Amino acid sequence: MAKEISVVSQYPSKLQVQGENFDPKNLVMTTAADNGKKESNGAPKDTYPAFPGWYADVSWPGEAHIYKMEKIIFQGKSEFQELLVFESSRHGKVAILDGYIQLTENDEFAYQEMLTHLALCSIPNPKKVLLVGGGDGGILREISRHSSVEHIDICEIDKMVIHVYKKFFPDIAVGYEDPRVHVHIRDGIAFINSVPEGTYDVIILDAFQPMGPIAEVLADKCFLESVAKALRPGGVLSAPADSLWLKNFVVADTIANCKKIFKGSVNYAWTTVPTYARHFLSNYIYLSKF
Amino acid sequence: MAKEISVVSQYPSKLQVQGENFDPKNLVMTTAADNGKKESNGAPKDTYPAFPGWYADVSWPGEAHIYKMEKIIFQGKSEFQELLVFESSRHGKVAILDGYIQLTENDEFAYQEMLTHLALCSIPNPKKVLLVGGGDGGILREISRHSSVEHIDICEIDKMVIHVYKKFFPDIAVGYEDPRVHVHIRDGIAFINSVPEGTYDVIILDAFQPMGPIAEVLADKCFLESVAKALRPGGVLSAPADSLWLKNFVVADTIANCKKIFKGSVNYAWTTVPTYARHFLSNYIYLSKF
Repeated sequence: MAKEISVVSQYPSKLQVQGENFDPKNLVMTTAADNGKKESNGAPKDTYPAFPGWYADVSWPGEAHIYKMEKIIFQGKSEFQELLVFESSRHGKVAILDGYIQLTENDEFAYQEMLTHLALCSIPNPKKVLLVGGGDGGILREISRHSSVEHIDICEIDKMVIHVYKKFFPDIAVGYEDPRVHVHIRDGIAFINSVPEGTYDVIILDAFQPMGPIAEVLADKCFLESVAKALRPGGVLSAPADSLWLKNFVVADTIANCKKIFKGSVNYAWTTVPTYARHFLSNYIYLSKF
Repeated sequence: MAKEISVVSQYPSKLQVQGENFDPKNLVMTTAADNGKKESNGAPKDTYPAFPGWYADVSWPGEAHIYKMEKIIFQGKSEFQELLVFESSRHGKVAILDGYIQLTENDEFAYQEMLTHLALCSIPNPKKVLLVGGGDGGILREISRHSSVEHIDICEIDKMVIHVYKKFFPDIAVGYEDPRVHVHIRDGIAFINSVPEGTYDVIILDAFQPMGPIAEVLADKCFLESVAKALRPGGVLSAPADSLWLKNFVVADTIANCKKIFKGSVNYAWTTVPTYARHFLSNYIYLSKF
């Protein structure tokens, strides 16, 4: 059983804490209910159980996926966010960022591969790629597999994330070892705005949690225009999208929004990542600029 | 909060029961760890938390999906199994059979549609269909949508299941209202063995929990020979299959086994059913006899 687990909770005052053996230090709890999922509005927020020694990934009130924390490996706080890494029973190491599950060693590859390869394979010989977020390094690892690529910029705001992944997830952070990779510790939007027009063949976004809910980010005209400007004509943007299983399915709206800025094709694809099963079953949107 | 909830657990003696407000009557817990998932062998079985008022769908030790039981609607035991129906916070009514989650109103359609339509659409004008299990009626509902079908037999061993679904899940059990449906309360294997050779155009299996683990049932030569005998030449069998996310991925073996008996094509297809996300992400196998 983990020994040093802090409370990572959005509703600590409303937790139903009970049990003589209960120690608030043993509770790790989060919720994604307010993370842009409008459908969760109106649902009661005071209905969470307590699971000492388990991490609860609360999709919305009344439902959660829980993982036993066999061992807490890292816990730290940067100026931007809080990161927790634990060893799970079945999925290897699990990373929790600001209470949200980021990845498990078991299935991270599916997410990283889907965000990378459809985009890079959709145009011939991509040479210059920008990754916004993605500090774990997994998408870098996948980009590095494309021999046509000559230069990879990664703009990650939080160096703690990079440090922790390099230390505890070497198979993911291996992406940093490619000499084509250039790391920029900066805010992604500021970085995109700073690069000359038409710099990149491909831009991959993996930074929605700090930037905001998926649907809102992809509805932000100014942001999309900045990305489109940073891409060369014919360049491609790849980003996570919402799930076809969400009750307020907004992908049609997202595609309509994106089409106003990206004059090329806008495509929606999806795969399964068990870790994200309830959240978005990993859907992706690919946009090209013409 | 539910008032009359019994303990439905495979490991009641090993539960870590704690908390002054804890009432064993409020615990509903199950595990699918021993349901043919060999990969779970060797994992500790004494590592479940207690969640009063929540149903825990334990994929394997150390991981579970939990649903808050807003209201217990039905609880009963037949000579074959125990059935629990509760109202969940987000997924409508949820049915639990012998501790295993059967379906939620939210996404049952995806499972029923996939088991039915690929099979019935794979041959021209299917006329006679057998459903083994599927007592909820949802697959009947889907079969009924095919106008070429003249006769539908359902062989369900447990009339309690039919009764409960008709009473509490009218949108699913609506399948029974079709006049082409003939209900047989019998053991499925005995029924298949009793019908004349070449009786059916399509046989759909939805009875694996009572029959055994998916991989084992589809590796049983005698059973597959019985099914093949009951099908007309060119007829099709449709059945759930294992997930591509299971660590001991056995679908290739299953297909190889089935090909020995079914001389036609053997195809594997999959969709997503959030309820089954960890278990098998709803995969299906379609076999035709030539």
